[in-house]
Parts: sequence; C-alpha cells; structure tokens
Amino acid sequence: MVTRFPLTEVADVPEDIRESILAVQEKSGFVPNVFLLLARRPAELRAFFAYHDAIMGREESSLTKGEREMIITSISAVNRCTYCVVAHGALLRIFERNPLVADQVAVNHRTADIPPRQRAMLDFAHKVNVASQEIEDADFTALHAHGFDDEDAWDIASITAFFGLSNRLASTTRLMPNPEFYLMGRVPRQR
Amino acid sequence: MVTRFPLTEVADVPEDIRESILAVQEKSGFVPNVFLLLARRPAELRAFFAYHDAIMGREESSLTKGEREMIITSISAVNRCTYCVVAHGALLRIFERNPLVADQVAVNHRTADIPPRQRAMLDFAHKVNVASQEIEDADFTALHAHGFDDEDAWDIASITAFFGLSNRLASTTRLMPNPEFYLMGRVPRQR
Amino acid sequence: MVTRFPLTEVADVPEDIRESILAVQEKSGFVPNVFLLLARRPAELRAFFAYHDAIMGREESSLTKGEREMIITSISAVNRCTYCVVAHGALLRIFERNPLVADQVAVNHRTADIPPRQRAMLDFAHKVNVASQEIEDADFTALHAHGFDDEDAWDIASITAFFGLSNRLASTTRLMPNPEFYLMGRVPRQR
Amino acid sequence: MVTRFPLTEVADVPEDIRESILAVQEKSGFVPNVFLLLARRPAELRAFFAYHDAIMGREESSLTKGEREMIITSISAVNRCTYCVVAHGALLRIFERNPLVADQVAVNHRTADIPPRQRAMLDFAHKVNVASQEIEDADFTALHAHGFDDEDAWDIASITAFFGLSNRLASTTRLMPNPEFYLMGRVPRQR
Amino acid sequence: MVTRFPLTEVADVPEDIRESILAVQEKSGFVPNVFLLLARRPAELRAFFAYHDAIMGREESSLTKGEREMIITSISAVNRCTYCVVAHGALLRIFERNPLVADQVAVNHRTADIPPRQRAMLDFAHKVNVASQEIEDADFTALHAHGFDDEDAWDIASITAFFGLSNRLASTTRLMPNPEFYLMGRVPRQR
Amino acid sequence: MVTRFPLTEVADVPEDIRESILAVQEKSGFVPNVFLLLARRPAELRAFFAYHDAIMGREESSLTKGEREMIITSISAVNRCTYCVVAHGALLRIFERNPLVADQVAVNHRTADIPPRQRAMLDFAHKVNVASQEIEDADFTALHAHGFDDEDAWDIASITAFFGLSNRLASTTRLMPNPEFYLMGRVPRQR
Repeated sequence: MVTRFPLTEVADVPEDIRESILAVQEKSGFVPNVFLLLARRPAELRAFFAYHDAIMGREESSLTKGEREMIITSISAVNRCTYCVVAHGALLRIFERNPLVADQVAVNHRTADIPPRQRAMLDFAHKVNVASQEIEDADFTALHAHGFDDEDAWDIASITAFFGLSNRLASTTRLMPNPEFYLMGRVPRQR
Repeated sequence: MVTRFPLTEVADVPEDIRESILAVQEKSGFVPNVFLLLARRPAELRAFFAYHDAIMGREESSLTKGEREMIITSISAVNRCTYCVVAHGALLRIFERNPLVADQVAVNHRTADIPPRQRAMLDFAHKVNVASQEIEDADFTALHAHGFDDEDAWDIASITAFFGLSNRLASTTRLMPNPEFYLMGRVPRQR
Repeated sequence: MVTRFPLTEVADVPEDIRESILAVQEKSGFVPNVFLLLARRPAELRAFFAYHDAIMGREESSLTKGEREMIITSISAVNRCTYCVVAHGALLRIFERNPLVADQVAVNHRTADIPPRQRAMLDFAHKVNVASQEIEDADFTALHAHGFDDEDAWDIASITAFFGLSNRLASTTRLMPNPEFYLMGRVPRQR
Repeated sequence: MVTRFPLTEVADVPEDIRESILAVQEKSGFVPNVFLLLARRPAELRAFFAYHDAIMGREESSLTKGEREMIITSISAVNRCTYCVVAHGALLRIFERNPLVADQVAVNHRTADIPPRQRAMLDFAHKVNVASQEIEDADFTALHAHGFDDEDAWDIASITAFFGLSNRLASTTRLMPNPEFYLMGRVPRQR
Repeated sequence: MVTRFPLTEVADVPEDIRESILAVQEKSGFVPNVFLLLARRPAELRAFFAYHDAIMGREESSLTKGEREMIITSISAVNRCTYCVVAHGALLRIFERNPLVADQVAVNHRTADIPPRQRAMLDFAHKVNVASQEIEDADFTALHAHGFDDEDAWDIASITAFFGLSNRLASTTRLMPNPEFYLMGRVPRQR
Repeated sequence: MVTRFPLTEVADVPEDIRESILAVQEKSGFVPNVFLLLARRPAELRAFFAYHDAIMGREESSLTKGEREMIITSISAVNRCTYCVVAHGALLRIFERNPLVADQVAVNHRTADIPPRQRAMLDFAHKVNVASQEIEDADFTALHAHGFDDEDAWDIASITAFFGLSNRLASTTRLMPNPEFYLMGRVPRQR
C-alpha cells in the first residue's frame, strides 16, 4: 500500500522546512517520510515539530531519551500505527543500545525485559492512551512508588497524547516507514 | 474534584503568553482554564496553540467554524473529556447559532438533527478517533459522496487527532471547565 | 432526525392517559415527548409509568430525588440515549439546584464535582449498567462504606435497570427531547 | 451461591400477589423464584408483571409466544443472566416443542437451527441489546425483508429492553433459577 | 444450519481412525460429530486427539475429570461455540453427577453453585482465554490460595488453550452437536 | 522477565525429543525456547509438534510456507504473544525473502505492503482469531474471490486456531524468544 497522500518533493517545500529536512537527512542519511507527508501543509508541519520538540527535547524531564521512545513505541503498537512503531522502535533501540527492547514493548510491555520503573511508566502511558477518563490519584501514586513525581506523570501523558495524535494522522493518511528504519539499532556496526 | 495540577496565576506567566491570555479574556470575559493549566509549561502551551491555530484557523478549509467545533464536541464526548465537551460545546452553539446541537452530537451524533453532510463528517471523525487503523479508501469515498475531498478528510482527521491529544491531557490533569461555558450559546440574549 | 414512530396526538389517547398527560403539561408547561411516543401503545405506557412511579416515587428510599436523576443522567450518557440525558439532566439540575452537575455526570462521573457518597452510588450504577454479571459482594461493601445499605443498592440497581430499558426504547424509536428540556435548570429565574 | 436478598415466604406477601403466585404454582407445579425475590417490594413486583404482561401477552403481535421466549433466552445469554437463560429457555423449549433450540440460541444464535425470519428477529434484538444507539433505518429494512413491520420491531425492542432490565436485577441480586426449569421441555413426557 | 463441511462417512475413514470411532460409538451409543468433521483430514484428527488425550488424560493432574470439563464448558460459552458447550456440558454433568452445573458455568461462572476452589480455577481459565497477555504472578498466587500449584495452572491453561483451538475450528466449520448430547446427564436413569 | 517455568536442560529430555531438538539445533544454530519449555511435559510436547507438523507441513495446501508464517505473525501480534511474533516473524522474513513484511503485518495487516490475496487471507484469519462465532458464508465467499477454496479456508482457520493455543501457552508461562530470532532474515548475508 502507498500513502493516500503523495509525499512532497524536498525541492517544493518552504525554505525553513527544507533546512530542517536537510539537517535531519545529514544526520540520519535519509529523510523520514513524516516530513514529506506533513510538508504539504507547512503550518501544520511547523506546529507538529514545535510540539514534538517541546516534549521530546524538554531538558528538565527525568525521563531519558530512551524512555520517551519506549512510551511511543509501546502505545503506537496498541494504536496499530506502522510508521510510529517502526520509526520510534529504531530510535528506542539506538538510545537504549538494546536491539531487543523495541519488539518486546511493542508486542506486550508486561512481559518485556525492562526494570519495574519502566514497567510502571508504561502502565501509566497505556492507561492515558486508552482510558484517560479513568485516571485517578491512585495512578499517580503508583508512579510515585517508582520515583516519578507529578511532573514526570505530565511528561508521560504529554508524550502519549502527542503520539496518539501522530498515530491517527499516520494511519489515516496511510504513511509507511522508510525502509531504513527497520534495521536501525539491530546490528552493532550500524551504530 | 479539582485539577490535579494547580492553575497558574496570570501574573506569573511569560509576557507573550500573558498577552494572549488577556486578549482571550477581553473577548470572552474570562480566561479559559486550559490556558492556566498549560501555562505551567510555557513551551508546551505555545506549541499547543500554534497547532490549534494551524488547524482551527486554516482559511482554505471547506469546513465551517461550527463544523470544526462539532467534531471536537462529538469526539470529546466519546473520549469522556468534560473540559472539551463543555467548552467546545459552547463554541459550537455560538458558531452554529443553535442551542440544541451540542448536546445532541455529544450524546449520539447518529440521532442528532444535522444534515447528511455533517453526519458523514462525524462518522469519519469517530472512526479516526477510535479505529484509525481501520481507515480505508472506502471511508474517503463515503466523504466524497457528500462533497468533501481528501483535503477535507485531512482537516477532519487533524482536528480529531489534535483534540484527542487535548482530551487525554485534560482528563489526566483533571482539568474542569470554567462555569461560564455551560450556559454560553443557550439563551438568545447572551450572544 | 425525527422519531421513527409518529407521536400520537393528545386528543387521540385514552381518557386516563390524557388526564396524566394534561397534569404533566400543567406542571411543566409542555408534554414530554415520551408520553406521546408510548401513547401509541396504551398498555405499555401505563405499565411504564407504573414502574417509573414505583421506583422514582418510592418514599422509603434514602436516595434523594436529585440522586435518582443523577443515576439516570449518567448511565443514559453511557448508553448514548439523547432523550434521557437531556430530559433527566434537566430534572437533575432542578432537584439539585445545580446548573453544572448534569453535564459533568453525563460526560464523566469520575471527575464530576460530587461528594464521595454520590461517586460510590454512580460507580455501582455504572457496573450494574454494563457489567451486572460481575456484581459481587465487594460491590455492596463499597456502598456500605458510604452509608448505603442493601436496600439502597436495590434502588440504585432498579433505577439503572429501568432506565436502561427506557434508553433502548428511546434510541430504537429515535425519540428526541422537547426543546424545553435543554435549558431547564440552567438559569436562576427559570425555576 | 445464594441470592444476596432472602426470598420472601409466600405467607408474607400481600393478598393480590399471593393469588397471582398461587395461580402460577398451580399451573407450573412450583413458584418461580423471581416472584419471591420481587415480593419484598410489592409495588415493584406489581409494576414488573404489569409490564411483562403488556408485552408478553400482547395479542395483536405477530410474534409467536415461542419467538418472544427465543428473544429473551438469546439476549439473556449475552447479558450472562443465569436465571433468565434457564427459566426462559424452558419456556422456549415448551412453546416451540423443540428440546434443542434454547441451548442453540443461548450459545450462538447465528449457528442455531432456526429459519431466516427468526435469525433476522434475533439480529435486531441483539443490536437493541448491546448497541441501541446505532439502530438505523437499515435495521428496520432488514426486518421488513422477512415480513416484519415496524410494530413488530417495537415488539422485539420492548421485549429485549424489558428483559435487559430483568437481567440486571436478577444478576445484581444473584437470583438463581428453580431446579425445575433446567429439565422442562427436554423430555417428551414432561410436557 | 448445517456444517459448512460435509461430515465423512465412517466407512471412508482410515482404519486406525475407524477403530477409535467405533470404540467411542460402542461406549457412547453414537459417534460425536467432531470425529466425522475432522476425519476429512486424518493427520489433523490424529494430532487433535493425541493432544486431547495428553491433557485430558494426564494422570498426575490434580484436576478431576469433572473440573476439566467445567473449564471447557465455561470458556466455550464465552467463545460462543455451540458444539463444545453442548457436548462438554454433557460430560460435565455426568462426571460431576450434577444436572445443573453445566448450564450455570456456561451462563455465568461467577454465580454458579460451585466451591471457591473451582471458582478460582475458572477465573484463571477465563483470563487465559481472553487476556493471556495480562497473566501475571498475582494470578498464580490467587490459585495457590486454593491449593493449586503451578503445574495445576499449566493444566488449566493447556485445557483452556486447546479448547480455544477447538472452539475456533468448530465455529468456523459450523459444526453442530449430536442431538444426544443435549439431554445427557440431566435425568437420573440416563446414567 | 524470565519464564514462569524453568526451561528444561536438553540432557534431561527423553531420547526421541532430544533427537528432534538436536535436529532443529543443527539446522538453526540454536534450540528455540519453546522446545525447552514444553519438554517438562513430554506427552504435550509430542502432541504439540504432531499438530504443528500436520498443519504447517501439509503438502496439499495452496498456502505457501511464507503465507502460513504471515498468518501466525499477524494473529500473534493481536494476541500480544511476544515469543510467537518474534520467532515466526523471523521465519516469515526468511520464507518471503522480505525483511520488512513481518513488522508490517504484526502492527497492522491492513496497511502492509502485501497483495490483495494475502490481505483477504489475513482478514479471514483475524476474524477466526477474535470472532469465530461470527464467521458466515460471506467470509468464505470473500476468500473465493481471491482464488482460495474451502480447503484453504480450513488451513487458514487451523493455523490461526493452533497458534492461538500456542499464544495462550507462551503468554501464560511467560516464554520469551531466543535473542537469535530478532535479527533473522533482516540482513542479506544472514541467509
């Protein structure tokens, strides 16, 4: 299947976006398809990445970069978004330097080989993802037992909510991941 | 119940955000609580409203302002987000100059007194909201039958996805609507 | 949308039912549509209101009139019955003298601004509504902790079950609420 | 397990109810437990059976007595109400003179050995039971294709809705069927 | 409805299978349809019964034969497999010498008249059946409280999983139970 | 997490099973953990692999080896069984000589880059997996449109049902995949 909306050519995007894209390309070796999908709507693309950076780049957060990608990979699998599971699974493997963890948290975070802290983090994220209306004080307390505070809970909820948005956009437009993502972080020399 | 996170005082927010807040206050007569919740994280607040404006203020869209609020009200009710149903229900009543429609699309959009075009729009939005992984070409075709094109489908999906994010944040933080919203648009002279 | 079944004219109903209808009209200022829908089947209408009165008018009950309407409003929203949410939401606002509570318990009773006793009452009602097969002794014990006894549990279950019946009838026949209900109890002078 | 609420002794019920109970006992050879459960609340018992008789005894209905019991047996199984499946399954076997049909429609009405008309009837009933908010004109049209009209649809909906009430009451109170019901209609000479 | 796949004639099956079939026929008085369905694929039939015998005939198990049939009857009802509910319900009645228990655990094991040990056994089985991905140490601990050990948990899981296979095959092929099963174990002299 | 049940040492298994295990080890370079889990119960292991071979090795089947693994990978992901998704995903990549397809059908078979025939095959498999009680003639007809006949439908159902068994056993015992599986079939020279 191909995406329902044709990807934009890099040559056709506004200057500021092209610069961002080229910067990513230089770092990764390819342009992730999400840029070329969203580029058909520059204002939305800019807002999407401003939001992305505000939560994924938040420096005060006690969540590691790997943990943030772990949340995305695990909730995107429940939401059945191929782009996000494959692309963020790649980032998760790289940040955690663990070639196995992405597949494990995508299939079933409850049996994944992760420490109890990350299990609690994912439990909270999954509840925000599918039953945010049932979040109660006890859910925050469960996080506190693992050293998370309420600001961390907000981080987990923001990441979950933002990538829930991303999952819905990618699935509706039928965006597929670049082939490069599938193998990233799986074999030592690739890093 | 009160929100899990204390609302920020207007006096304590960064200058640019305070200006936005005061502009809203001047127009509405009060400061919607969502501003004071998000203000504890200025970068996220700015990104949130940049995204909001990119989709809700998109001028080329063929969706009316009322239709956009209709989507929000209806999917927020399925997601059980009190803040969004009450606040956007108010805007829906005002934009549509219809005191009944918000309650109708919140409870069951299938029986609401709306034209077939809006029914089709909400059917697509609800599928994006709860089963985006099952969206197929037939869902776009169903929209086309009512005069929507693929760009309209993108608009519907973006609004649904963005307010799905908003629903999860508001429910997790237990944000409640300002009392003013409940009555807005229900009685003629209030407009 | 209009109801699937035409509403009966008041002039065409049997004498005893017409008297009841006129009494309601005198008190409320209008005839609630449910009377004119059910009037096409006088025997069912009589049984419906006999049952209604047996549980809603039960004098020994420790549930206030407002609490009974609160149960109806909240479970009818889960069952997505427009007529019952709007009509009983109006009664709830009036009995509780609270213009906000109906919208709150309709969207999400867990975040509504109600005391713990009413939260426990609604938790029990919602379980009866969607999972009565899983009701166990522990559910009664949870009610006892808030001062309810088993007879109160029966009341909650009866109200929930009866309005579950009402929800299914109203949704199947596509009964819509009278316009008057939407605003009742929302503005002080209207009472 | 025993019922959560003790059954009332026949000697302790009001005169009019005792007469009804004795009439049933004379006809069936035993007093169905539902009478002795509801007898603790005479007003509710009277309303319950008035409603029951209005729909189950409706003479103009084109549904046979067996078909009415078939609806009850099949939807009560989905609602997991032991009392209703066993008691009404017995009546179904007797009215249909078919010892196999009750177990078949209780487990899966789609594979039951019933004619297409009854399959359509049960499809409508099951939709009213679990998704009345999604009933649309097409569901009535599907019934029409099998000779049912809108009044029949009302009958199916009323029976489904009323026994949904009954299921919730019986499950909440943990009412169990009399042992006699299990075998009724299964062996020729018992009829 | 008849099975989607014609049942094989006994005369047409391979010698070893015919012997098994005739042995069952001699013992039961009839040939259960599952043999004649699977006989169209001898290799699968042999594997099916080898697996069946390995778990149902396991001598070291602390589960009684009745308890094994109780698991099958109860989970097959949730899976809505008519063949398995009726056929194994018959065996359950016979092994437990209890004409009522099969209908009770089929409709709702939570209200069935069984001891707490069997209730715990069925709770574990139902979780394996519909949510095996959520099984955790606490589920094993709950079994231990009733005298079961981890080997018993394995037995419960194996029986549940194997008959989940059987349910899917029987429902897909639309296999119906032999008429003889419905009455078996319900009347004293039949045993 | 480690498996709830310790894996058996190869040295401790019966002779015939050891031979099978050593044959697999010689071919694959390692012993898949499922053998060492099931080896604690030799009779069940033998039956498991007899069944496995009867359906996976069936020579008359028109399903390719890759298609059979595709069914397993896709339904195991819905059932959230980590062992089966990872191990059979590896086999799928190898048989199809396609490093991307396993992740695609695991996350969402509807958007996977597969031909319509395989999409139809997976649609049938997923319905057998989660709603076998709703399989009807129309589901077979949908397969026929892609060149499958009823025997192929049986194959699809058998594979789905058998690995549903496998999923439940692996999840309940918390069996995790050997590290070797994760990378198999992803890089050219590994084959």
